[in-house]
Amino acid sequence: MREIAATWMRGGTSKCWVFRRDDLQVPDLSVDEVLLRIYGSPDHRQVDGVGGGTSTTSKAVILAPSSAVGVDVEYTFAQVGIEEAKVDWGSNCGNCSAVVASFAIREGWVPTDEPETAVRVLNTNTSQLIVQRVPTPGGVLDETASETIPGVPFPGAPVRMGFVDPAGRSTGRLFPTGRTQDVLSDAVGGVTVTLVDAGAPVVAVNASDFGVRGNEDIAELDLVPGLLARLDAVRREAGVLMGLAESSDAVAGAVPKLALVSTPSSQGVEGDDLTVRMLSMGRFHPAVPVTGSVALTLAADASGTVVHDLVPAVRPTTGLRLGTPAGCVGTFVEERDGVPVVGVVRTYRRLAHGSVVLPDPPLLPSASA
Amino acid sequence: MREIAATWMRGGTSKCWVFRRDDLQVPDLSVDEVLLRIYGSPDHRQVDGVGGGTSTTSKAVILAPSSAVGVDVEYTFAQVGIEEAKVDWGSNCGNCSAVVASFAIREGWVPTDEPETAVRVLNTNTSQLIVQRVPTPGGVLDETASETIPGVPFPGAPVRMGFVDPAGRSTGRLFPTGRTQDVLSDAVGGVTVTLVDAGAPVVAVNASDFGVRGNEDIAELDLVPGLLARLDAVRREAGVLMGLAESSDAVAGAVPKLALVSTPSSQGVEGDDLTVRMLSMGRFHPAVPVTGSVALTLAADASGTVVHDLVPAVRPTTGLRLGTPAGCVGTFVEERDGVPVVGVVRTYRRLAHGSVVLPDPPLLPSASA
Repeated sequence: MREIAATWMRGGTSKCWVFRRDDLQVPDLSVDEVLLRIYGSPDHRQVDGVGGGTSTTSKAVILAPSSAVGVDVEYTFAQVGIEEAKVDWGSNCGNCSAVVASFAIREGWVPTDEPETAVRVLNTNTSQLIVQRVPTPGGVLDETASETIPGVPFPGAPVRMGFVDPAGRSTGRLFPTGRTQDVLSDAVGGVTVTLVDAGAPVVAVNASDFGVRGNEDIAELDLVPGLLARLDAVRREAGVLMGLAESSDAVAGAVPKLALVSTPSSQGVEGDDLTVRMLSMGRFHPAVPVTGSVALTLAADASGTVVHDLVPAVRPTTGLRLGTPAGCVGTFVEERDGVPVVGVVRTYRRLAHGSVVLPDPPLLPSASA
Repeated sequence: MREIAATWMRGGTSKCWVFRRDDLQVPDLSVDEVLLRIYGSPDHRQVDGVGGGTSTTSKAVILAPSSAVGVDVEYTFAQVGIEEAKVDWGSNCGNCSAVVASFAIREGWVPTDEPETAVRVLNTNTSQLIVQRVPTPGGVLDETASETIPGVPFPGAPVRMGFVDPAGRSTGRLFPTGRTQDVLSDAVGGVTVTLVDAGAPVVAVNASDFGVRGNEDIAELDLVPGLLARLDAVRREAGVLMGLAESSDAVAGAVPKLALVSTPSSQGVEGDDLTVRMLSMGRFHPAVPVTGSVALTLAADASGTVVHDLVPAVRPTTGLRLGTPAGCVGTFVEERDGVPVVGVVRTYRRLAHGSVVLPDPPLLPSASA
């Protein structure tokens, strides 16, 4: 039995355990083995661990101070498998990203400014720099619960996160195929898609191509016969086209994400710009992955994309107002030091801290169970 | 913001946060308010708290050493509401009970014996004394993961829990109506039930009266049209008959529990004695509540009950082997100091410990969310 220092935090609409990178180094065990056992995987309930049995509650944030130029903190995201004894390191989680600045300031890794502090966070999964601004009046981190975001009923402390020059971090290009739209094979319905890589690789498809409106509750979408399977087949073929895997079978569950997009019923000054239902880890997301919202924002600005044709030509803000199952999530676009920065405001909260307990090996379930 | 010392433990098939009673005393706030906010309730996902969004993961164990004669530890169980801002104090959770002996020994509240220690735990919700035996070779608590129970894929440390003289703790009588079976009103189908109070108040009904076999997967039972609503109506009328509430509407979600019982397809030396699917908090339990298994054990031994007619007249053990969705759970019956003790063996594990964070008031969700 071994205790590992850990903090449990909500970041946006996710819950993640936060670890210092060095603390996960355990003799004779890989980090994957350590995380899986701590989380209680494989087990659909994760009843013997700290995982929550859902994709948004089986996440780890692993942090270390950085000595790289222009970087304060190195941040690695792990999606810990639930029923499968597998850790997915292939993508970032934008919601979990929201906890990094606060944790780093509390650890004393980053000196504070006044009245806010910008923490330069490098996500190592995607080589993405995220500049996070948190209020630090008088040089002291202020975690007053002053903002509310869709999908979280309680207010939380705000963090303004900007993804710096996010295009092509996973594949090298904003549009990995060199085209703003592609037509997939007849095997997956010959559907037209936009493949875009910003924040995370995303496949955007028009809801009408799948016989749904696109603004349904996710519980309703879950019940549409064959829909999840069809969308996953599209996602897998798209993943291969984007160069993320050699074959459909080898495409990860978390990457690319898939966005089912449609025109909002009331578009305009008061309405959303785009309605979205996004697939992550095989299920519809209760709100929207932050990384996915970055991708859709850049896709909306490029003519020829599936997204561009659905959003208003003239919009009141530089970003995109996304109609999600939980409510409207707005992104922003700005330019800093000559490069585009796409971002969102999230909230976060520390839920618990102390240590998690790693049992002695063997670390896999007994065969009889 | 305030930090409250807490330990997260698995007890049997539940996960519960364990608190010292004094630590939950917060000026100007009730314990209910404190628990609800820590757990992130009301919210179906409990995303801003330490609750897990399911009945088996939204539980609290509150402990204090006891000065009462024959009692080492006082244990109060709280079922923390998820979508409802309400804490239910009306019942015990037998699975969570499994964490008490270990916690108390670690706190130094109970001197250890050799080679095992019996900790006398008083559950204050039900005035039930539970004697818990854990291995303490050489006087040191041994938490080696040596046993496996149905519903938990990983082995854990064992605790042998005996419910001392469990009959009538909530209502005063083993059979609260004075009868071993009752016929309910036509409004709920005129069904024959056994109302039994041991460990917890339980309503036993024959699966065949509801048009199901009784050994279905719980996911399959969830989909039987109207079944959950019919069973809940039965449960509520039964709750009133047992004297637990004035009216059906006032019957709590957690009490009484309802057991859908049937004869196992292969009864006998190798098979189970009874197949059970138990309702708790409006949903079918993934295994079986420990308290419910105590009630069924005593009901099986009394002729005339719905249970008695389904189990073998001669059984190889003193207890009952229950066929649950997760596998076979065995109970034992023994006599100690002239009173019956009904029990089960459970496993437990410490998952995390340190403190949980209570935000500053206001503690309810913002109205706009």
